Amino acid sequence: MSSTFGELFRVSTWGESHGAGVGVVIDGCPPRVPLTVETVGAELARRRPGQSELTTPRKESDTPEILSGVSDDGLTLGTPIAILVRNADARSSAYDEMQHTYRPSHADYTYDAKYGIRAWAGGGRASARETIGRVAAGAVAKAALAQLCPELEVLAWVEQVGDIHCTLPAQQVQGCVVEANPVRTADLAVAGDMQRAIIEARSKGDSLGGVVACVVRHVPVGLGDPVFDKLEATLGHAMLSIPACKGFEVGSGFRAALLTGSQHNDAFYMSGDQVRTRTNNSGGIQGGISNGEDILMRLAFKPTATIMTEQETVTDTHQPAVLRGKGRHDPCVLPRAVPIVEAMARLTLMDHLLRQRAQCGFETH
Amino acid sequence: MSSTFGELFRVSTWGESHGAGVGVVIDGCPPRVPLTVETVGAELARRRPGQSELTTPRKESDTPEILSGVSDDGLTLGTPIAILVRNADARSSAYDEMQHTYRPSHADYTYDAKYGIRAWAGGGRASARETIGRVAAGAVAKAALAQLCPELEVLAWVEQVGDIHCTLPAQQVQGCVVEANPVRTADLAVAGDMQRAIIEARSKGDSLGGVVACVVRHVPVGLGDPVFDKLEATLGHAMLSIPACKGFEVGSGFRAALLTGSQHNDAFYMSGDQVRTRTNNSGGIQGGISNGEDILMRLAFKPTATIMTEQETVTDTHQPAVLRGKGRHDPCVLPRAVPIVEAMARLTLMDHLLRQRAQCGFETH
Amino acid sequence: MSSTFGELFRVSTWGESHGAGVGVVIDGCPPRVPLTVETVGAELARRRPGQSELTTPRKESDTPEILSGVSDDGLTLGTPIAILVRNADARSSAYDEMQHTYRPSHADYTYDAKYGIRAWAGGGRASARETIGRVAAGAVAKAALAQLCPELEVLAWVEQVGDIHCTLPAQQVQGCVVEANPVRTADLAVAGDMQRAIIEARSKGDSLGGVVACVVRHVPVGLGDPVFDKLEATLGHAMLSIPACKGFEVGSGFRAALLTGSQHNDAFYMSGDQVRTRTNNSGGIQGGISNGEDILMRLAFKPTATIMTEQETVTDTHQPAVLRGKGRHDPCVLPRAVPIVEAMARLTLMDHLLRQRAQCGFETH
Amino acid sequence: MSSTFGELFRVSTWGESHGAGVGVVIDGCPPRVPLTVETVGAELARRRPGQSELTTPRKESDTPEILSGVSDDGLTLGTPIAILVRNADARSSAYDEMQHTYRPSHADYTYDAKYGIRAWAGGGRASARETIGRVAAGAVAKAALAQLCPELEVLAWVEQVGDIHCTLPAQQVQGCVVEANPVRTADLAVAGDMQRAIIEARSKGDSLGGVVACVVRHVPVGLGDPVFDKLEATLGHAMLSIPACKGFEVGSGFRAALLTGSQHNDAFYMSGDQVRTRTNNSGGIQGGISNGEDILMRLAFKPTATIMTEQETVTDTHQPAVLRGKGRHDPCVLPRAVPIVEAMARLTLMDHLLRQRAQCGFETH
Repeated sequence: MSSTFGELFRVSTWGESHGAGVGVVIDGCPPRVPLTVETVGAELARRRPGQSELTTPRKESDTPEILSGVSDDGLTLGTPIAILVRNADARSSAYDEMQHTYRPSHADYTYDAKYGIRAWAGGGRASARETIGRVAAGAVAKAALAQLCPELEVLAWVEQVGDIHCTLPAQQVQGCVVEANPVRTADLAVAGDMQRAIIEARSKGDSLGGVVACVVRHVPVGLGDPVFDKLEATLGHAMLSIPACKGFEVGSGFRAALLTGSQHNDAFYMSGDQVRTRTNNSGGIQGGISNGEDILMRLAFKPTATIMTEQETVTDTHQPAVLRGKGRHDPCVLPRAVPIVEAMARLTLMDHLLRQRAQCGFETH
Repeated sequence: MSSTFGELFRVSTWGESHGAGVGVVIDGCPPRVPLTVETVGAELARRRPGQSELTTPRKESDTPEILSGVSDDGLTLGTPIAILVRNADARSSAYDEMQHTYRPSHADYTYDAKYGIRAWAGGGRASARETIGRVAAGAVAKAALAQLCPELEVLAWVEQVGDIHCTLPAQQVQGCVVEANPVRTADLAVAGDMQRAIIEARSKGDSLGGVVACVVRHVPVGLGDPVFDKLEATLGHAMLSIPACKGFEVGSGFRAALLTGSQHNDAFYMSGDQVRTRTNNSGGIQGGISNGEDILMRLAFKPTATIMTEQETVTDTHQPAVLRGKGRHDPCVLPRAVPIVEAMARLTLMDHLLRQRAQCGFETH
Repeated sequence: MSSTFGELFRVSTWGESHGAGVGVVIDGCPPRVPLTVETVGAELARRRPGQSELTTPRKESDTPEILSGVSDDGLTLGTPIAILVRNADARSSAYDEMQHTYRPSHADYTYDAKYGIRAWAGGGRASARETIGRVAAGAVAKAALAQLCPELEVLAWVEQVGDIHCTLPAQQVQGCVVEANPVRTADLAVAGDMQRAIIEARSKGDSLGGVVACVVRHVPVGLGDPVFDKLEATLGHAMLSIPACKGFEVGSGFRAALLTGSQHNDAFYMSGDQVRTRTNNSGGIQGGISNGEDILMRLAFKPTATIMTEQETVTDTHQPAVLRGKGRHDPCVLPRAVPIVEAMARLTLMDHLLRQRAQCGFETH
Repeated sequence: MSSTFGELFRVSTWGESHGAGVGVVIDGCPPRVPLTVETVGAELARRRPGQSELTTPRKESDTPEILSGVSDDGLTLGTPIAILVRNADARSSAYDEMQHTYRPSHADYTYDAKYGIRAWAGGGRASARETIGRVAAGAVAKAALAQLCPELEVLAWVEQVGDIHCTLPAQQVQGCVVEANPVRTADLAVAGDMQRAIIEARSKGDSLGGVVACVVRHVPVGLGDPVFDKLEATLGHAMLSIPACKGFEVGSGFRAALLTGSQHNDAFYMSGDQVRTRTNNSGGIQGGISNGEDILMRLAFKPTATIMTEQETVTDTHQPAVLRGKGRHDPCVLPRAVPIVEAMARLTLMDHLLRQRAQCGFETH
């Protein structure tokens, strides 16, 4: 179990879905960063279930408590910041079947096989509830980045739900639009279609997958630590650790396979005293290091594994079984994945920023 | 600069393309694993330039020397294994232009911006020559895996070059076929087309991208360390750190976005005393842990950035410039990427295997 | 701020003395280890203030709550174990002076200088209260070691208080005797003298230092990871991170300086099928690896910095000042240091044990 | 085998005493630091055998080769710096007995027990030759510190050999005096006595231990990462990883046990605009963070384990045996330990300096 992410901005989450709570410890946050429980709560509200008719109607208040690392007057101390979110004590009988029956495409079987034990209720550690710690830590990273790189902006949105695409170019995507529709897509023109598709899937007891896109704007040049911690590699690591994420691409991504070098290369030119590129197939990263252009990422998410139809499976004593999903679940994880993707991007960038300051930010004599 | 990969099977590469040499130190390899310089050399031969008409005609012998960590009778000692490959002293004048002119879509500009200095000849640390260390370490991992998981097989192949696809299902791919054609694709029926496409691109001074696929067979159940080091996350990290890799997907990957949950879920069934899945959209990984099915990965590679046509760029003093590629380069990195992908897969698996043994491989009293 | 200890059995503490609470997250604990809140509470009770007339009369109940990582039936899940101990809300006005005046030989000045901010009440992060997390984690390590190495015993005691020595040989020290006297020395014959010396120091508003000894019995052969993580090096790291610890020695320690090689070398002999040594100047460690003999350590502790006499100092605005300690403090940290020393020993051994299992515990084919 | 030291200034040594060579990779060194092979060679010359009649007469030239990480004009590139020192091929028949017989108080038995294999010639990985990598890395750290902290001075010396003490206060010790006598003590008045004692021990086929002291002057305030990586804890870790080191103390060290709080506390006062302490029992570290006063350390070294007298032991097949040391060895490791101690101090400080720059060195907006 490796529940820590980051080398210098080190984030450690903990907690099962039906234990006492979930939480996170952030070690390495610079001191004197303004941070309040409201800052953290605002991000958590964006991932909370029950925020729209598209998400599970489960009610979880998800109120964070900052247990350490912040002074009485709301400044980080440079010491570990511990954040706790209590679980509501709501073990539904809907979960009873999960105790001995492996849900297809869930973590039940592999946790049992690896650990010889499993917190079966609600998925335990493999529950999406674990991402509360990520989002809380992302809020801390956001506050720290606001101090260190005030211009930097991280923005994610739902680009695809099933076969419905939002084709708005990344440069034109606006956060206020994304937050203004429950699907969190970037173009209100397709938001309705996406919403209907999700509701229709749910009405059939089924679920949908899709694609989340993410752009990082006003990135300082120089972030990323080649050769193994290239910026795209650590971003990919971060994103592929999000539950249900099946693919990650940066810049041209899989489309690059179809281009020739002369089509794909990003020509350099000077824009004032800034080195810029004419195109951005590199997705803002060259040689594993940010070049100042927008960082562009896309993440594939599979359809929610919990569905309300009968499925073939086996029990933990290796007997054939039939499972029918119960309980209340998101028919599409995408809308709530948006703040998680942003959180993981911020954690990764913050870590590289601190590394950059350590190794490279000095003047020679 | 983070040149170390892995927590327990820790691989640290070093070296610039035109310095004294390149190499790697592997710390954490179990003791008493048979290892010879020939084992390492065989893998290096697969990534060496000049092995076919598809690759750069540069001659590099790439003979490895094992400097430590192996006993006189060819067994690992449990101590760090250092491997050195000398660079041939061949700084061509073809590189002179690179000293002050940034090659588009290369690492020249970002290294300069980050470090304030750059080993310009041949790309320095960002050269593909750095992957020698990876492949040498991968050979060590291969030898160790042969001891710890004798059944495990890692196999990569070129699935796509430009718009030419190899559609052979992963289950049918054979290593001997892959090695029998210079493109390293899995189906000899398309190998010729791919080969011609690459040669044609080169003849135009251009280059091609593509897709490498990789399967891992006979994987032990239980590899992977949730939540941040899910097996797909560390594999993705490993693969996205390979030069020119722009995308990574596991199992259904981006295709998952188009499926419903009822289509995508992998039903469990018993095959003898083994828990198996009817389909493998999960790509052999559930909840970040291997479930014993084949691990399936796909990697997008961009077309080689060095092309023989004129390109707009700037110099390191921020003057506009025109660059025309010189020297001898692969018009398509895919064939030589195959052993690198396999190496990175093995390094990742070996690391998780050791972690698994540490935390989970014990009997309770 | 690096609040994490260990590579594989990874312990991260957090919390300030007057924030919401203090706590710890343990990542890497093997699954299926019996663990209850009582197990943790029992160790915490040993470090709690107010347990005897020798310690501060402050009342802190220090009741732990296990927030995650343990199943309903009291077995570890292999997931992170988070433990929380709430702070009693007891910011005494005795601390007011600390807000702007640096206490000599405390961390007030250096925290301010490093972080530009400081949780001044009660010492904040530098308070001895931080060790609650260590002791709680030590209780988890103790439970895990009981599964993995049932014979292993870790035992610490107070060997010296001021100039009063307990000369009982380490082999003869018994845990029940140590726990039976409030000083936690190993020989009841000197316990009274030590106790009187501490009470006398307190009556003068002064404090005493001393030495804690620690023995580890029934150690498996093979623990320790040369060359930089030699067992004595990581044990030393662990112990020197305990507040007020000024020195660490293993085996012959500083006494080794006075011996010749012929006096110091530990001759090998066979005892049945076991390789043993006639003497144990090595302190159970050779080449950084345990040899199966008792591990012997000694730690020097300085006298408590908080004293009730006037001291010259400066304020945080760099004005000269005079400080007179207030509040209730231990006149000697040694008795309560004993469970902390044991905890740090267990954390270190547990970590090496997991590393040993990862790299070395396998059979060759 | 954990052969890496440091988090951000990461040093990985490798090599056995009778393999192809020994070496080190340094990852994380800031770019643009002047570094030449002569800089490294100068430090290596100080630890080389055969430099005086006090050390083994073995001849090892120990010429370093910098394989990577430095530009043609002698500046670090920010990439890993690999340094190689070839072993002279000199496997003496003096070592033959070592193949199957365990040398008392050496690492032969424990390596065999842990790894099931052992590079027996000359001690293999446990040989003092391993410290070449440390000293070479220390030379790199010295060059980097000269850029980042030009005032900082690290100075070690032999304070005690057997029962002969050098009582010169740390403030008065001068590097030129230390280097001017073969014992590397700080007071020429006792150098002769120490020298004679060592020669006499050798003449008896015996060996001596002693104490090395080390002072760090002009330390920036703020180095050290509480709570587990307090500066004394990482320094202790570094020092206790040096072969033959049995004890470590900082500031008052074990002497602290005998002092009262009122005697031990270091009163603060202002010296100009600098916060200073009247005494320095803290040894320059408070709360795990440097306070700007001199850092004072003392290390105990055991007498050389290889002696020329008969010793009881056992073989690797568990037969009783008698061993008589052969070969040429230092009768006292202290003189050659001095540059190693300085190297380890510099590696530790450099690492904390980079960490400090990452987390704390920024202005709030």
